[in-house]
Amino acid sequence: MTGRIPVAVLGATGAVGQTFVRLLDGHPTFQVTEVAASERSADRRYGDIVHWHEGACPGDVADLTVLRADPAMVKAPVVFSALDASVAGEVEAAFAAAGRVVLSNAKNHRMEADVPLVVSEVNAGHLDLLEVQKKNRGWDGAIVANANCAATVMALALAPLHEAFGVRSVFATTLQAVSGAGYPGVASLDILGNVIPEIAGEEEKIEQELGKILGSLEGGRVIAASFPVSAHANRVAVEHGHTVCMSVGLDRPATPEEARSVFESWRGASVCAGLPSAPDRPVIVRSESDRPQARRDVDAGDGMSVVVGRIREDAILDLRLVVLGHNTVRGAAGGSILNGEIMVRLGMIDSPS
Amino acid sequence: MTGRIPVAVLGATGAVGQTFVRLLDGHPTFQVTEVAASERSADRRYGDIVHWHEGACPGDVADLTVLRADPAMVKAPVVFSALDASVAGEVEAAFAAAGRVVLSNAKNHRMEADVPLVVSEVNAGHLDLLEVQKKNRGWDGAIVANANCAATVMALALAPLHEAFGVRSVFATTLQAVSGAGYPGVASLDILGNVIPEIAGEEEKIEQELGKILGSLEGGRVIAASFPVSAHANRVAVEHGHTVCMSVGLDRPATPEEARSVFESWRGASVCAGLPSAPDRPVIVRSESDRPQARRDVDAGDGMSVVVGRIREDAILDLRLVVLGHNTVRGAAGGSILNGEIMVRLGMIDSPS
Amino acid sequence: MTGRIPVAVLGATGAVGQTFVRLLDGHPTFQVTEVAASERSADRRYGDIVHWHEGACPGDVADLTVLRADPAMVKAPVVFSALDASVAGEVEAAFAAAGRVVLSNAKNHRMEADVPLVVSEVNAGHLDLLEVQKKNRGWDGAIVANANCAATVMALALAPLHEAFGVRSVFATTLQAVSGAGYPGVASLDILGNVIPEIAGEEEKIEQELGKILGSLEGGRVIAASFPVSAHANRVAVEHGHTVCMSVGLDRPATPEEARSVFESWRGASVCAGLPSAPDRPVIVRSESDRPQARRDVDAGDGMSVVVGRIREDAILDLRLVVLGHNTVRGAAGGSILNGEIMVRLGMIDSPS
Amino acid sequence: MTGRIPVAVLGATGAVGQTFVRLLDGHPTFQVTEVAASERSADRRYGDIVHWHEGACPGDVADLTVLRADPAMVKAPVVFSALDASVAGEVEAAFAAAGRVVLSNAKNHRMEADVPLVVSEVNAGHLDLLEVQKKNRGWDGAIVANANCAATVMALALAPLHEAFGVRSVFATTLQAVSGAGYPGVASLDILGNVIPEIAGEEEKIEQELGKILGSLEGGRVIAASFPVSAHANRVAVEHGHTVCMSVGLDRPATPEEARSVFESWRGASVCAGLPSAPDRPVIVRSESDRPQARRDVDAGDGMSVVVGRIREDAILDLRLVVLGHNTVRGAAGGSILNGEIMVRLGMIDSPS
Repeated sequence: MTGRIPVAVLGATGAVGQTFVRLLDGHPTFQVTEVAASERSADRRYGDIVHWHEGACPGDVADLTVLRADPAMVKAPVVFSALDASVAGEVEAAFAAAGRVVLSNAKNHRMEADVPLVVSEVNAGHLDLLEVQKKNRGWDGAIVANANCAATVMALALAPLHEAFGVRSVFATTLQAVSGAGYPGVASLDILGNVIPEIAGEEEKIEQELGKILGSLEGGRVIAASFPVSAHANRVAVEHGHTVCMSVGLDRPATPEEARSVFESWRGASVCAGLPSAPDRPVIVRSESDRPQARRDVDAGDGMSVVVGRIREDAILDLRLVVLGHNTVRGAAGGSILNGEIMVRLGMIDSPS
Repeated sequence: MTGRIPVAVLGATGAVGQTFVRLLDGHPTFQVTEVAASERSADRRYGDIVHWHEGACPGDVADLTVLRADPAMVKAPVVFSALDASVAGEVEAAFAAAGRVVLSNAKNHRMEADVPLVVSEVNAGHLDLLEVQKKNRGWDGAIVANANCAATVMALALAPLHEAFGVRSVFATTLQAVSGAGYPGVASLDILGNVIPEIAGEEEKIEQELGKILGSLEGGRVIAASFPVSAHANRVAVEHGHTVCMSVGLDRPATPEEARSVFESWRGASVCAGLPSAPDRPVIVRSESDRPQARRDVDAGDGMSVVVGRIREDAILDLRLVVLGHNTVRGAAGGSILNGEIMVRLGMIDSPS
Repeated sequence: MTGRIPVAVLGATGAVGQTFVRLLDGHPTFQVTEVAASERSADRRYGDIVHWHEGACPGDVADLTVLRADPAMVKAPVVFSALDASVAGEVEAAFAAAGRVVLSNAKNHRMEADVPLVVSEVNAGHLDLLEVQKKNRGWDGAIVANANCAATVMALALAPLHEAFGVRSVFATTLQAVSGAGYPGVASLDILGNVIPEIAGEEEKIEQELGKILGSLEGGRVIAASFPVSAHANRVAVEHGHTVCMSVGLDRPATPEEARSVFESWRGASVCAGLPSAPDRPVIVRSESDRPQARRDVDAGDGMSVVVGRIREDAILDLRLVVLGHNTVRGAAGGSILNGEIMVRLGMIDSPS
Repeated sequence: MTGRIPVAVLGATGAVGQTFVRLLDGHPTFQVTEVAASERSADRRYGDIVHWHEGACPGDVADLTVLRADPAMVKAPVVFSALDASVAGEVEAAFAAAGRVVLSNAKNHRMEADVPLVVSEVNAGHLDLLEVQKKNRGWDGAIVANANCAATVMALALAPLHEAFGVRSVFATTLQAVSGAGYPGVASLDILGNVIPEIAGEEEKIEQELGKILGSLEGGRVIAASFPVSAHANRVAVEHGHTVCMSVGLDRPATPEEARSVFESWRGASVCAGLPSAPDRPVIVRSESDRPQARRDVDAGDGMSVVVGRIREDAILDLRLVVLGHNTVRGAAGGSILNGEIMVRLGMIDSPS
């Protein structure tokens, strides 16, 4: 345990909470020392109440007693929050006010002007907003948000294009996995042999968050990227992995070959290089005409890479392509952890002495 | 049996062939008197060799002996063709040359200049091309094509908008059912828990066929509608029903409410009214925010209506919406049968004396 | 409307409640005049609060105001109960005490000695228990239970064998549809690409209820059939239709051919003949080696027939076979309605004057 | 490459063939130096023609040129055969006659008296049959078969019970994954939302092979275990993992607790201990009431362990339980590889000098 930073997982029994516990098992920098959940789970052994979804719950975490999600109960200096949006707003703020670094998956604080909304390789630099946040809020802690799962996947595919050619407009249709809705989430009667052509609030999140993520930090605020996004969100009978079909308009037109070359050389923010959760390649290009596929490509880069394929011309804009990413890893818990690793590297989170 | 027109089904053992047999069971105008299939099925009892998919094979057809798909063997004056594209080109032409009316589901002849490509309510008037066809080809018979299944569903949603406002551009992402690939078609290992982001040739068919269907017949030829279509085709784990997410640009901008009103009042070509396979409403609008859904709405209008929902504004073009239609009924066999019913009504197919 | 008996559906918003509403739409004997549900749905328009699953909600029922499930509020003399087991016990008893005929789908009263547990064609004669029930309970109303969905399907396959050969022992493995768990019921994350080898309480219900259903009514009580049942219950990714694999030991050994002949000639209790919900054949035998199949055979007899197939010898007992039935129709709402139709025919429910 | 034994994979493009290639990637003892497939694939680059299913094809194998499955072309002293049964009989015999050790997944030779049918931990001792085989056949090579996938999973659960208590009779219902049918295998139209209650020939294989596997080798022949097996085979919409519900009769009755204890202490044939593909525990017991589950437990022990759960009393025989195993790993390629590792350890396969 020496040398590892103690962390707490808030909302630890849910689908994203479990993913935090799973991904942090054996992590070289962080160690889960506390788990917190709702009132009715408090004071019970984590392993006894969690309905564990994948493989087996790590034994040391299983033995932890579940705490209430309250900074008076939870002592860790760093908290990964998988809290539901219905409570995340207040609870996360309370933790930040109590001096903790909160890495949040909830939507509540994402669009606040002084909260960095960070997809690590895309805009790690936005973490500098924390200075503004601390000043504004008068607290010692911090809230760093990661983005909506579909927005995260799209941001990783759009960032290389935006940097190289300038993105001018985006059409996007998502085919999203059921794990994105948490557990129990989508009822089997709703999705077996079916497509649900709506995910409440998702299209708005995609449209808003992409602008902020791909925006530039100037004078203590983020100037949002200004391209319009037309999003169509769908739920499909897939366990993990959001597929997004996109048509992209560019400021400086590019051929599919040029775009491919940009994707293949892109590594994103250099601060990520070599971090434990950083994939070798944030964007992997597959050349087969029928890839990426959710079930077959979702674990690329241990779930931290997005996979791009079918880069081709578009009849209206410039390029058409398909991008796939792991919604609960890259688009949720894994993204938060990578943000935390960056903050340790940058000294924004103290290492144990 | 008196009064019914004898018809043959070519390719009768496949998925679309079976749908023809099922939909024609008890039909008031047509009676299946012959079934034809590949050489290796010939001379056997249809009921013995067909791997029947839905419910039970109608008894009178089950007892038919399978013929070779050859106009020398098949006598019916009208043939519904569910032949595979690998053979449909020549065989259908042979039947037309032998004086038969061929209603084809294959792609082979669709884009030929003198072959009407007909989605009944949209462009029944294109049947007038048959005069040109007969003159060009020097045959007494005729080939009438119906469109690709996804193109058919889209055409029914676009036609009311095109008539009312003029369509200027279309983004479309399809989520297509496995039955569109025939039987055995898509391997279960490819589609369980997965999305396949490619259907070979489908995007090109959609882009080309829509222009012809929504084009105008002038001076013996179809002037294609000229709007660009950006199509993204996907296969999903749905049995029947193609879902299409569309963003549509219009010549004369319209609000979602205006579009909805246009859809609700649209009935299409008046020649369809009251025909046995014509739905009361070719386009049904649902107002729930999570409809249409493939499994729940695919049988609207006995599978002959398309269902439109989620009509809303678009950030780039004018409107976003979702449309769903039954791919093997509306998009294949049912569409052919309705075309045949129109031809009977117009005297292009002789009624029995 | 004259001539139809007014009925109420209790628990009308759930999956089985909706099935009642759907099956009773246009029913010649019964008319849904009231719908009741939980407190929080009361006083609202049914069509506004029901999350309707299949097709469209019948318009006249959609316009009803939802009542509380209380005999002081609900006036109909006949109530079909789709209440959850957590409340069904008391509420159904209150309705019976208030003089109403309650046709119940809940497990609460099934195994009570004076409550008939009726699978119509198998043991309609058990309705005579109602005399005992009225005397015991001192009420004018009645409670008639139908059986667990899997037990119902099995009972229809075992009854012909029991009558002809005597059943001595049964091994049964069920592969049950998700709709058997109601809505939202089974989480999609639990069942996509998965089998759940447990349905809480189901094996016990099957083992107990089969004995009572196939028992004989003697001296005012049911002498349970005494054969042991070894049940293995599983949930599978099927929407509707429970498949059951059975090995059956018989008192008088029979060949598969003899069993098949018995199934094909069996029509069950003659009181069912010609009733609106009675299928022509309660048991249909299919001879194809790969049938019955849930998706393809679930609607046999409008969902009121069970389908038997693969009748073959068993290495340990006498016969192996597969039976399939529609769990929410035959195994729930449809079974209750057919029981009600019998009661009307027998004068146990008054017809309107 | 020094020190590794060169091996060939026959039938390398199919589902099991790919699993061989995947599992042998980085194997410490074996190295894939040749791949063979049907005539039409010969002379092409493996990576160019294989439709790879999981992750990415190992690069060194991708670069191999596909050979014809002929001992004149293929040089490796050890061949893993994933050949289809239509050709495996002759081809495997030809390789054995040419002095090669053939580890076969096909059914062709399994029930021949001098061919060991080996589930490693259960009956590694049957490899001694090879002496008889060599004498009988007059060849220097050998054929070792592994069992049907469902039979393998069952054998691993039955062996501990058989050793401890004696198995007297078995009822078994399988719920088998689609990957067991190879690729393309089961059509998606057949399995989406469905159960297929038949797998041609499977029930017979299970009944016969279990007797041989659990039999004893005496005097140069296997005396089959004599208990009857009643098998019901089903295909379900699961990608990988066969679930089997079993009722088991024992010679010396045991309680569920005693059975559980036996499973937990069982390690099987000691020759397997520590081999690269041998799991720490061939049988893992899970105590949750709803496990094992195909999607969640299939990869236990890297796919080489079977998982047993729901051990409980049976109303007719002694015990009921559920067992799950990975059909293409444990039940096919992985089982063959472990058999090969045993043969190296025992000197039946020569190590490179």
